[in-house]
Amino acid sequence: MSTTSLIKSPSGVSTGPIGGSRKVYASPRSHSELRVPFREIALSDPAEPPVRVYDTSGPYGEADPVIDLRLGLDTPREAWIRKRSYSAIAGRPTRPEDNGHATGERLVEPCPARRTLRAGAPGQRVTQLEFARAGIITEEMVYVAHRENLAREEAVADAADRLGDGESFGAAIPAFVTPEFVRDEIACGRAIIPANINHLELEPMAIGRNFLVKVNANIGNSAVSSGVAEEVEKLVWAIRWGADTVMDLSTGRNIHNIRSWILRNAPVPIGTVPIYQALEKVGGDPLKLDWEVFKDTLIEQAEQGVDYFTIHAGVRLAYVPLTADRVTGIVSRGGSIMARWCLAGHRESFLYERFDEICDIMRRYDVSFSLGDGLRPGSIADANDVAQFAELETLGELTKVAWDKGCQVMIEGPGHVPMHKIKANMDKQLRECGEAPFYTLGPLTTDIAPGYDHITSGIGAAMIGWFGTAMLCYVTPKEHLGLPDREDVKTGVITYRIAAHAADLAKGHPAARLRDDALSRARFDFRWEDQFNLSLDPDTARAYHDATLPKDAHKVAHFCSMCGPKFCSMQITRELRRDAAALQGMAEKSREFVASGGAIYVPAGD
Amino acid sequence: MSTTSLIKSPSGVSTGPIGGSRKVYASPRSHSELRVPFREIALSDPAEPPVRVYDTSGPYGEADPVIDLRLGLDTPREAWIRKRSYSAIAGRPTRPEDNGHATGERLVEPCPARRTLRAGAPGQRVTQLEFARAGIITEEMVYVAHRENLAREEAVADAADRLGDGESFGAAIPAFVTPEFVRDEIACGRAIIPANINHLELEPMAIGRNFLVKVNANIGNSAVSSGVAEEVEKLVWAIRWGADTVMDLSTGRNIHNIRSWILRNAPVPIGTVPIYQALEKVGGDPLKLDWEVFKDTLIEQAEQGVDYFTIHAGVRLAYVPLTADRVTGIVSRGGSIMARWCLAGHRESFLYERFDEICDIMRRYDVSFSLGDGLRPGSIADANDVAQFAELETLGELTKVAWDKGCQVMIEGPGHVPMHKIKANMDKQLRECGEAPFYTLGPLTTDIAPGYDHITSGIGAAMIGWFGTAMLCYVTPKEHLGLPDREDVKTGVITYRIAAHAADLAKGHPAARLRDDALSRARFDFRWEDQFNLSLDPDTARAYHDATLPKDAHKVAHFCSMCGPKFCSMQITRELRRDAAALQGMAEKSREFVASGGAIYVPAGD
Repeated sequence: MSTTSLIKSPSGVSTGPIGGSRKVYASPRSHSELRVPFREIALSDPAEPPVRVYDTSGPYGEADPVIDLRLGLDTPREAWIRKRSYSAIAGRPTRPEDNGHATGERLVEPCPARRTLRAGAPGQRVTQLEFARAGIITEEMVYVAHRENLAREEAVADAADRLGDGESFGAAIPAFVTPEFVRDEIACGRAIIPANINHLELEPMAIGRNFLVKVNANIGNSAVSSGVAEEVEKLVWAIRWGADTVMDLSTGRNIHNIRSWILRNAPVPIGTVPIYQALEKVGGDPLKLDWEVFKDTLIEQAEQGVDYFTIHAGVRLAYVPLTADRVTGIVSRGGSIMARWCLAGHRESFLYERFDEICDIMRRYDVSFSLGDGLRPGSIADANDVAQFAELETLGELTKVAWDKGCQVMIEGPGHVPMHKIKANMDKQLRECGEAPFYTLGPLTTDIAPGYDHITSGIGAAMIGWFGTAMLCYVTPKEHLGLPDREDVKTGVITYRIAAHAADLAKGHPAARLRDDALSRARFDFRWEDQFNLSLDPDTARAYHDATLPKDAHKVAHFCSMCGPKFCSMQITRELRRDAAALQGMAEKSREFVASGGAIYVPAGD
Repeated sequence: MSTTSLIKSPSGVSTGPIGGSRKVYASPRSHSELRVPFREIALSDPAEPPVRVYDTSGPYGEADPVIDLRLGLDTPREAWIRKRSYSAIAGRPTRPEDNGHATGERLVEPCPARRTLRAGAPGQRVTQLEFARAGIITEEMVYVAHRENLAREEAVADAADRLGDGESFGAAIPAFVTPEFVRDEIACGRAIIPANINHLELEPMAIGRNFLVKVNANIGNSAVSSGVAEEVEKLVWAIRWGADTVMDLSTGRNIHNIRSWILRNAPVPIGTVPIYQALEKVGGDPLKLDWEVFKDTLIEQAEQGVDYFTIHAGVRLAYVPLTADRVTGIVSRGGSIMARWCLAGHRESFLYERFDEICDIMRRYDVSFSLGDGLRPGSIADANDVAQFAELETLGELTKVAWDKGCQVMIEGPGHVPMHKIKANMDKQLRECGEAPFYTLGPLTTDIAPGYDHITSGIGAAMIGWFGTAMLCYVTPKEHLGLPDREDVKTGVITYRIAAHAADLAKGHPAARLRDDALSRARFDFRWEDQFNLSLDPDTARAYHDATLPKDAHKVAHFCSMCGPKFCSMQITRELRRDAAALQGMAEKSREFVASGGAIYVPAGD
């Protein structure tokens, strides 16, 4: 199968809404021109309002989307960006090394979609941070506010109760998100909107501890496997199930041209690790890396529209020997590349030394920093060690430099960390990095379950999300073992949506529990279809149900396969409630009984 | 397929060790007659000692076990129990209602294995608690100590460091478990050894917060599905992957006879919920239940050798109305049955009123209590409500009654609880129930992911295990949707082994990290086979690896499919380490540099 032929065909990607729901767009009252996407789940009980949920699927999630991958997606941001009067630029020409010198049959053609390329000028406001500090509320901020509110125009009735119920460890989650609140969070660096001015297809989103917890999914080919068609479909597949951002970690040939297909067809922020491509350009030898090839790569990718870059500028020469006694040394690819570079020539990292210049480049396009944790622990034994924390302190120092330069920043975090050491990571990150958003990989809470590391890490992710991490980088079942396939990507995303939602509930996010409550009411009422449709993965829920009780009649039966009709606790409870008069009279008495210490044992016979 | 014919055949159950390991038996120096089971994983690096892990698989895990399900397993406890001089009893004859009046073709034959039936007399010591209080160390206690130590004869070298590293929230985990420590923990009610004197096939184990965290798996047929052959294999399959105890939640016909097959072939403690069978005996109508039928069922099951009973004696009449405003009412089967019984006649629960008599029966056989949480929350909305906590207070009161009667006790816990409300459950349980072991179902940390509730609950299970829960009741992917099949049982058990192990690490269990460290060293050394074999599920780890890199050569390659050879961080780190001289000289300097606040940004060009 030719990779390019699949890319030309809309049928090559998954489209249509998740079963039992439909894509809707809502506009904030103040901005009728903005179309903010949601997914709406209609319920079978007329007394139950439809449930609107956050949706990351982009136009692919519409019922009959008109999608031509060669033209790319619509460009909702074009009008907003045009108003900001940036200079059109010619752009850096593509060079043979950008695609690993692939030629002929082996060269993937670039996505033919054409966009006006732009760059900010010195002194011109470009980044969301610069606008926020100037008191300007951008379209992106308004959009994000409406999205975070799930299109509510006011706080949910009992939001104060809900918030009081949670424990947010010092976060300041509001009952209702206003555009001004978004601006303020960005201005102080506590949140970012990763949104390259050359990524016009983007549906903006925010990453910050006072917003809903986000999830990143990684895609990317590597030297040993994968092709371009799979990568675009992986993007579409990952956002279908709820990935808020996607990192393209491709290495190998055709890296530039594959990325062009991804970006022109991505409604979510795309992140990359530029050092990977820089290394490809120098034939894979870390010692041949230098500032010029790295700088060239930054510009190349920024012009394409990449929204955030992982930059491992905290791996300083002096920290490398601190990893000597570790059980698993350095496990970050970027970290190990830079460590090798530093140590071979006994040189300070050029990423660290040129950090000012990196900021200047990224600011021109509003590429956000994701300051990489190149020295993150790769095993329980290495968690929270001196190397890891030394780097984190440097990332805190670099955060302030980037902020001074007007750049948006988030900070990457571990890795492998046992439960009792997770909170120390969060607390130190908040302290060192001035509350810049934390973006963690898991963490994995044990090393002993390869094949199940979505679970070992989902535990840590839920906890650190509760403690304050703003975005969770997913881990798939294939972590440590192989490259994730389609099912692995889905499993990874769903697992991390669970972790993120559990964190939102625990933090007391005002709207988080609406969906849990709607699903639990459906469960208690035996509205099976509603229960499936409200779940994160209706297809799997329905299939599991049908595996035991396939008959349609069972989907309206007032019992289920777990207990059968005689032992159905919910059915028995319903019978209990029928005696409503008895219950109403007794409820108050029962409370009195309990309050008066009635639970005192009276021996039988007395 | 006839269910009975499969049961006759040893080939009907899974035997043999998990790949890459072998079953071994070790004896404590002081008791050469005890054969305590472990699994030993030999590693390919001669410098790496074999890793011994806790093993629950029983004789089934041996390489070529001689197993005849009709004869039952060997009876290691026969000699110990015989010494204790209990009276042989005739036993209650089986009655038609014990098997739901099944006859002819529909009647499953009972397991023909014959054992001497015994019961303790008044004043005679029977329970492990009674022995412990009398200062007597039983064989079960010695066995358990050796098992908890993973057959170590002394503390691991750096156990003190390991313990200092963890956070156990007031537990008192020793560096090394002595038989006397086990006795003391049981004497004060902080641990139990569920071990009916009629369950001679049992390999004893302990449940308590100062021991390794345990996992329970549920099996059982129900009115709508399943048969006897599947149930025995489910037991064997569940313990193969690490279930420490198994609850038989069967309802429907043949319940007595199926249980006879399970018990005679179970090396792990078996728990039941007697009210289920009692309800079957009265034709499924809760209102027809009474003390006599329940008492009869207790004796019937105790004589068979059931090790612990879930008794929902905390569902008092006065608490039932407290559930009236809940989103999901009462979700415990036993709880709803008793609630219906109480409310229909406005009567106090006979389980509560006859609790003394229940204790007297259970003591005679040393059946442990698992005091059921019939009012546990079934949704996030209902967590930690007044009904749940009122019942928990009553369970605390009943714990003390049972202890006074000489019975061992653990306490069941929720359920559905968001992360920020989990610790309150643990703290209240410890306080109300005098540190009796807590045994929780999950808890599930969100309601929105049916199909993935092993994960929503694995998060909560790891956390509450860390906080002090002694045993975690597994949840499978089919929870809320259908009956688990073979793969679901395995997934549920592995997920809960992850949660339990993550908890052991976080609590600072002295030996827990040995396996993580051995696996991480194997990973760093690219000893792929060792990595697979050390994992909780070698089959899945190997299969996932082979899906991307099937060639055998890749299993010794110094890179893997995730990054390929050029981007392999571990390979690069190894190259770094080759320059050992440079590293050694620098490591000390680096520490000085970090200590002196060296991480101060120096702008490029200065």
